Amino acid sequence: MRVFIIKANEARTDATFSFKDLPGTSGRIDLLCRALNAAFHISHGFRKNVRVWLSLYGPPNPPKAIRFEGQIMKPKTLNPDELSTAKLIARALKGAKGLREPSKELEVLPGIYVSNMTFEDIVRRTIKGATLYYLHEEGEDISKVKFSGNVAFVLGDHIGLPPEDETFLRPIAKRVSVGPRSYLTSHVIAYVNIHLDRLGVL
Amino acid sequence: MRVFIIKANEARTDATFSFKDLPGTSGRIDLLCRALNAAFHISHGFRKNVRVWLSLYGPPNPPKAIRFEGQIMKPKTLNPDELSTAKLIARALKGAKGLREPSKELEVLPGIYVSNMTFEDIVRRTIKGATLYYLHEEGEDISKVKFSGNVAFVLGDHIGLPPEDETFLRPIAKRVSVGPRSYLTSHVIAYVNIHLDRLGVL
Repeated sequence: MRVFIIKANEARTDATFSFKDLPGTSGRIDLLCRALNAAFHISHGFRKNVRVWLSLYGPPNPPKAIRFEGQIMKPKTLNPDELSTAKLIARALKGAKGLREPSKELEVLPGIYVSNMTFEDIVRRTIKGATLYYLHEEGEDISKVKFSGNVAFVLGDHIGLPPEDETFLRPIAKRVSVGPRSYLTSHVIAYVNIHLDRLGVL
Repeated sequence: MRVFIIKANEARTDATFSFKDLPGTSGRIDLLCRALNAAFHISHGFRKNVRVWLSLYGPPNPPKAIRFEGQIMKPKTLNPDELSTAKLIARALKGAKGLREPSKELEVLPGIYVSNMTFEDIVRRTIKGATLYYLHEEGEDISKVKFSGNVAFVLGDHIGLPPEDETFLRPIAKRVSVGPRSYLTSHVIAYVNIHLDRLGVL
């Protein structure tokens, strides 16, 4: 299976942002909506072999983690457009309001879970069952990397990962690059998905 | 330079659609917004070497063509989110209201032009200065194609190209495929852009 972990440094951790101005009010939840689109959608289909973790660190209640589990989600839950996906994220954040435990997950819809897990919690849980890669413009070229088994990818948002996250990842995640420039998170996910399809990696 | 021509079979050709429900009211202009995002945006940058043609064939006034010229556009005109891009498209369609001539272009913003040009008009104009490819799941694998000079790509929307367009393209456009499955238009554009970057094709 394929796991994508996206660290969103400024993404709001409550549901008070405006659907009329996602880039201006949500801490770039629009970017996360496009990342989910790239992770799950194919033409007239849905990738059930994908898990996405959104790791939200914006105000007012960081951290929040939202897990999207392709195997369990109903494909019709996630639509390609940004607005309906932003509403799903808002619904999950509303669900997290009363959540006190540091790692308990609450299922807000089939296959969609919210929790107070940290970025490190997510990564530690992920590396138990998958090989971890950190998508970074200075990483090894993706064409040279041999993928097999379960694969997981960490991606930054428009800001990138803070130094402490990079330090945490250094011993556990190989840096991989998709191309010679610095790309948007959703474009990198689209590229990685197609690249893995081409290699026949499930 | 890189040209992307997207045929949108059902996209509204006036500006009466709802920004609150693009997928349900606009004939999938949300898809075109994501295609523009994939064509032009890189992280903290803008691809000036890109031209996008949207060829709109939905009701009530088809055809409409909107040309986005990266060389001339102000990078801040196009933002990554869907909603602001849908507003740009609506603005162009409003501008086209009084347009009677079949091929005259009206500049609605620097580098953004609207006209009554047909899909065939766009393609004929494009092949004067670029090699044309038709992105199709049954095409030749993209890794085997030698790209050089100006390149242009035709892509369908969620419906795909109608048979008459495919017949028109057959003698003038090589079919190329990015991978073993059928992908969303925006994901294909993201893949092609990164692939060309990797090859060093401008």
